Amino acid sequence: MMIEKVEKFCLNNNLFKVNDCLIIACSGGPDSIALADIMRRLQNKYNLKIIIAHAEHGIRQESSLMDAQYVKEYCIKYDLPFYLEHLKVPSFARENKLSMETAARVLRYRFLRKIKEQTGAVKIATAHHLNDQAETFLQHLIRGAGSEGLSGIKPVNGDIIRPFLCLYRREIETYCEQYDLKPRLDETNLSLDYERNKIRLELLPELERYNINVVKSICNSAKIIAEQNDYINCCAQKLYDENCKQEKNTIVLKSEAIKKEHIALKSALYRLIIKKMQGNLENIGFKHIDKIDKFLYNGHTGSILQLPHNLRIEQSYGNLIFQKSCEDIVLLGNYNFKIEMNSTIVLPDNSIIEMKQVDKPFKIKGNNECFIDGDKLTGTVHVRNRLAGDKMMPKGLNGTKKVKDIFIDRKIPAKLRDTVPLVCDERGIIWIAGVQQDSYYTIDENSKSIVYLSLKKL
Amino acid sequence: MMIEKVEKFCLNNNLFKVNDCLIIACSGGPDSIALADIMRRLQNKYNLKIIIAHAEHGIRQESSLMDAQYVKEYCIKYDLPFYLEHLKVPSFARENKLSMETAARVLRYRFLRKIKEQTGAVKIATAHHLNDQAETFLQHLIRGAGSEGLSGIKPVNGDIIRPFLCLYRREIETYCEQYDLKPRLDETNLSLDYERNKIRLELLPELERYNINVVKSICNSAKIIAEQNDYINCCAQKLYDENCKQEKNTIVLKSEAIKKEHIALKSALYRLIIKKMQGNLENIGFKHIDKIDKFLYNGHTGSILQLPHNLRIEQSYGNLIFQKSCEDIVLLGNYNFKIEMNSTIVLPDNSIIEMKQVDKPFKIKGNNECFIDGDKLTGTVHVRNRLAGDKMMPKGLNGTKKVKDIFIDRKIPAKLRDTVPLVCDERGIIWIAGVQQDSYYTIDENSKSIVYLSLKKL
Repeated sequence: MMIEKVEKFCLNNNLFKVNDCLIIACSGGPDSIALADIMRRLQNKYNLKIIIAHAEHGIRQESSLMDAQYVKEYCIKYDLPFYLEHLKVPSFARENKLSMETAARVLRYRFLRKIKEQTGAVKIATAHHLNDQAETFLQHLIRGAGSEGLSGIKPVNGDIIRPFLCLYRREIETYCEQYDLKPRLDETNLSLDYERNKIRLELLPELERYNINVVKSICNSAKIIAEQNDYINCCAQKLYDENCKQEKNTIVLKSEAIKKEHIALKSALYRLIIKKMQGNLENIGFKHIDKIDKFLYNGHTGSILQLPHNLRIEQSYGNLIFQKSCEDIVLLGNYNFKIEMNSTIVLPDNSIIEMKQVDKPFKIKGNNECFIDGDKLTGTVHVRNRLAGDKMMPKGLNGTKKVKDIFIDRKIPAKLRDTVPLVCDERGIIWIAGVQQDSYYTIDENSKSIVYLSLKKL
Repeated sequence: MMIEKVEKFCLNNNLFKVNDCLIIACSGGPDSIALADIMRRLQNKYNLKIIIAHAEHGIRQESSLMDAQYVKEYCIKYDLPFYLEHLKVPSFARENKLSMETAARVLRYRFLRKIKEQTGAVKIATAHHLNDQAETFLQHLIRGAGSEGLSGIKPVNGDIIRPFLCLYRREIETYCEQYDLKPRLDETNLSLDYERNKIRLELLPELERYNINVVKSICNSAKIIAEQNDYINCCAQKLYDENCKQEKNTIVLKSEAIKKEHIALKSALYRLIIKKMQGNLENIGFKHIDKIDKFLYNGHTGSILQLPHNLRIEQSYGNLIFQKSCEDIVLLGNYNFKIEMNSTIVLPDNSIIEMKQVDKPFKIKGNNECFIDGDKLTGTVHVRNRLAGDKMMPKGLNGTKKVKDIFIDRKIPAKLRDTVPLVCDERGIIWIAGVQQDSYYTIDENSKSIVYLSLKKL
């Protein structure tokens, strides 16, 4: 039985706990309505609170509104809380120069996290299944991803859970028929991603002619690659702790200590260092990792290896010094970097954001530093530049205000506004770095976890 | 320039050394004639001796003979030693119940190794290139291989080297045109493997419509997976040395010591143990590794997990005991297991072959033990059952004799002949276990490395 399969998968992977409140992202298609239906059936056994959230993308007009109506009726029938939001995807995409697909994803997750906060939910469940997993694998393989990319979708990722990563699409379709759910539409024909659709509708059926169980084969491979990759990343972190030192915007690596390590481990270490420097591995490919490794053995003190994003490596007396170069500052377009507690990240303009836990607040002056209440943080913290529609509740002010208006009030020149870093968590904006703090996160006498944020400009 | 690219690749991967004698396997197709041509051009610079070997498969009659003629003429033109053999693939395939493709491969490598021995060559070069690599990756992905399979073809594997694993097919074709080599045929249309041909002629061109550089993408992924896999296997070997004990036909693993290890490392350890038990991972899939890991945590003393090939695992007071079960002996068809020095392997009928280095010969009696000269071994040692056409030079006899005739002379019943293990290296048969030793490998007063072989029947 499919419900037992999903239940077992959820328990094995710790997707939820007894008494949890869960948001189900539900488009009204077969995958997500089946997810809503199965989670509803598990509700009593685990005393879950199930909340259905439907984002109407505002792309397909009337048909779109009927999807919303369908999900709403399902919720009424089973007495489930229903949240609906009409997203303005096309205008958001236009204003932020994003693809429709990316814009839709950003707005959808913004909406889901808003509902999550409003309702006190702990997780958001999405209906990704094994066929999605295989499609993602193939997409990454074709584009040329490393083992990170080939690892695919994970059952748990932050506050997102995927209870259906144990099911094939055909099982879900059978379930919908069996329980007469009459899903509104086939999501497969809806995706805004042309390449993804081609993989789904042409490539996978083609591969199934070689092996009817090819989705299973690919998912098994993805799982093994994910496990191996995770293991090597753990080993690389150990190597990092032993041989690297982070200092402001540089990371110093003792070359001699790692020269005899296995190439797989060294490569993972290089990727880890770059991630710590710039928050992601964007534009870092196979050939860059290769170049770094050659540089480890061939360079001499003073020689420099230039990498994308103004990252450069300098040889210096038995060390490799990874640094953000100060020459040739290039302002990048949109960025969005994850920042870990007790770490610093360097932004494309070489300014540095630091976030660290401190015992108690100390004296600071100016707008380039602030304290926030660590217990109020939701999910991971990111640093990004502004997006259209950004709002916050400025400290010392009642109510919300558009970020754009804050910039105008503070007389920040229009051409600089895109370069101002916003520190955000999954709830919203924490700090317009150097400009304005949000009132929600401010500390008071009851705060137990004090977090210090700073912006340093080079 | 292509020749510099190949030269650099060979040097970086240590494919040959100065003064080496190399066999080039040359079908007369574009890939292998280009390989012959490039190795010929590198000949003087590295003082190589290049020998061309052509196996005529006896499948396509006249066209096949013209291929041989073409390669021969090339060799005459450039004054290269040329070896030709007419293989009897169809009858060999029939007699040994092999696919035409497998039969052709077995006979081809047998021929190449014979020439290698006759000429004192040290390596055999084949013309596998990056497109072959991508095809192999896809074939394994579709069939559901683990990371081992996805690692693909290696630049060096035993005595085989692949100087072209840095080139795309189109580069090779361009080279052939440029130097007017007029290759005899397009090997791509020749392969006996239907699935492989479909991948080459349909799937890869299809994938190139998503990304014109998809072959590069796939090869990069394969390389990273190969490196990571190799690293994890090294870690697993360390874990094995610390926590496993091999005793005759069992391997005892201290369960408690590995329970906290990473799943990727444990999985690699299970695969390593099974490989040591039966020489390969045949019929061991994702689900078996999964089952073993669950068994590690859930079993209690006395509980047993049954795996394919009569392999079973027993829980016993904090240990997992891997063993070949003695019940339900099933005689398998053809087998071919690698055996490492100082190890034992268990054959499908539960008899055990041991191979170990000893200081000096000791007294033995009967035919179930023998000594051989370790310095005379070529490449890896395998244990397999007989194949049609097997020959050896029986100890104490001048000249070669068919294995079949030896069996007849010794009055070994026909129905048992397929179960008699033959210990072989890449040169030929070392020992018909329990029956007859080959004279080439026998020890004398000058032997410096004494290797003891034994057969134990259960």
